[in-house]
Amino acid sequence: MTLDDVRRAAERIRPIARRTPVLTSRTFNERTGVEAFFKCENFQRGGAFKIRGAANFIFSIPERDRARGVVAFSSGNHAQAVAIAAASVGIPATIVMPADAPRSKLEATRGYGARVISYDRLREDREAIGRRLAGETGATLVPPFDHPWIIAGQGTAALELMEQVPDLDTLAICIGGGGLISGCATAAKGLLPALRVFGVEPADANDTWLSLRAGRRTEIPPPATIADGLRAPIPGAITFPIVQRLVEDVLLVSEEEIVAAVKFLLTRMKILAEPSGAVPAAAVLAGKLPPGARRAGILISGGNVDYELLAAM
Amino acid sequence: MTLDDVRRAAERIRPIARRTPVLTSRTFNERTGVEAFFKCENFQRGGAFKIRGAANFIFSIPERDRARGVVAFSSGNHAQAVAIAAASVGIPATIVMPADAPRSKLEATRGYGARVISYDRLREDREAIGRRLAGETGATLVPPFDHPWIIAGQGTAALELMEQVPDLDTLAICIGGGGLISGCATAAKGLLPALRVFGVEPADANDTWLSLRAGRRTEIPPPATIADGLRAPIPGAITFPIVQRLVEDVLLVSEEEIVAAVKFLLTRMKILAEPSGAVPAAAVLAGKLPPGARRAGILISGGNVDYELLAAM
Repeated sequence: MTLDDVRRAAERIRPIARRTPVLTSRTFNERTGVEAFFKCENFQRGGAFKIRGAANFIFSIPERDRARGVVAFSSGNHAQAVAIAAASVGIPATIVMPADAPRSKLEATRGYGARVISYDRLREDREAIGRRLAGETGATLVPPFDHPWIIAGQGTAALELMEQVPDLDTLAICIGGGGLISGCATAAKGLLPALRVFGVEPADANDTWLSLRAGRRTEIPPPATIADGLRAPIPGAITFPIVQRLVEDVLLVSEEEIVAAVKFLLTRMKILAEPSGAVPAAAVLAGKLPPGARRAGILISGGNVDYELLAAM
Repeated sequence: MTLDDVRRAAERIRPIARRTPVLTSRTFNERTGVEAFFKCENFQRGGAFKIRGAANFIFSIPERDRARGVVAFSSGNHAQAVAIAAASVGIPATIVMPADAPRSKLEATRGYGARVISYDRLREDREAIGRRLAGETGATLVPPFDHPWIIAGQGTAALELMEQVPDLDTLAICIGGGGLISGCATAAKGLLPALRVFGVEPADANDTWLSLRAGRRTEIPPPATIADGLRAPIPGAITFPIVQRLVEDVLLVSEEEIVAAVKFLLTRMKILAEPSGAVPAAAVLAGKLPPGARRAGILISGGNVDYELLAAM
């Protein structure tokens, strides 16, 4: 995985992914002592960065396999991203989603033209369903993070940010399965080797933090964090070595810090981030970046949150 | 009031006002049949377009009068804008605000360095207090809308939008006292005479709609709309003739349509607009633009809304 892989992904996904804006906030800078540049992937198509990896993956599928379609399992942003990217090139998409997923996400995924198959989250294994569907139909499974095509696609978010703000010294990026941070670290450190990349996890979903300290992939019980996009219980087999090699450290944030960051972004910067998307901002707001960070890129990974959840925060 | 006044204002306020981004939404376009360009003044300094007019006014005050300061009466965005603009050039600012104004607005105004004087909204007349203060101290009163310097400053929002998206055929802009729309219509029709400018008011605050039909400024009882920035009960003496001359018509929206627009902007476009700021989007979402609008600039005038109000919507 190199900067060139990310550059090729950027070319490939150009027809579909938005070049999202970078916003700044005097109040945030004054409060944190860091000059922050927010890469707003909440404004991305589908409301999250996921379209970058999904599109790079789907557009890389060999022509002969395309007609048999793609399948993905996801309760969240990956589902919508696969649906959008597949529809854009006329590939049929089947998404395996839990029956109790937020109605807005089920509807959005169907709205993008995908077939949705529901399963019982407590009694059935979505991976098994997804793999069985793929096996039966010959469809290609689009994994959520642990694949080089996905990683390279997600890295285009940092590649773009570095073009928009060339002289960053720090990046803060959330970690779920690690696809976003490994792609972004590959791009950013490929361009500026001295730049420091910090991962951020909810304290309750600290599998990568633990894994880095243990020196090997460590699984945790299913985390209950409000940051529902970051609940993967173990780092990816492909992403973790990249994280070990390129990421400075993982910062941990509390649930209260995540909610405070969502509210700050909303009321002060007027942008809606989902809890997972606010996690890196939460770490910087809480003063958790180590000294030396002057110009920090902060990735807002997505903005898909139901109005009801937001109102209840 | 001409395009050149607005151009000079743009030069004058360049050191302080942000060039706010323009966002688009496929979902909005598909739902309305209009290609919409949202000018995001909710990302403006102080969270609303008001800094444009306030800065143009304050920077136009003759040097000999500056040391005696400025005074303004406002419960909302004008207060913060005057405080920010005055502080930026070292002019003392006094803001007369109702004692029951949202705490966040009182604190923000003080935070920008202004002296805040509270009054009882039901028993005292803020204009009288403001004028008395100005008379006693020699401070310059910064009016909220009905002044050529204010109007020219607000017009810079449309001037910028027309530079960012050159071939618009329609503008939709909210009307409170009419400062924003008269400045914006001056700029936009000065650049593109065929462009049509539509004002939008809450149905409950339809003083300009009534006034246009009556052919003269008509006062209504204090409106109770949720769009608190648009509660001025009568058009301005200076703004109204400009509206008569340059504005196509006024569209009216219900309270439910305003709330629906705030929620659409938030959950689909991931941006926070205050109710007043969502009013033009509400009109377009509700299909109220007359036929012929293909490329419409929609002004999001501000984003200052308390989390509690938002959660209760």
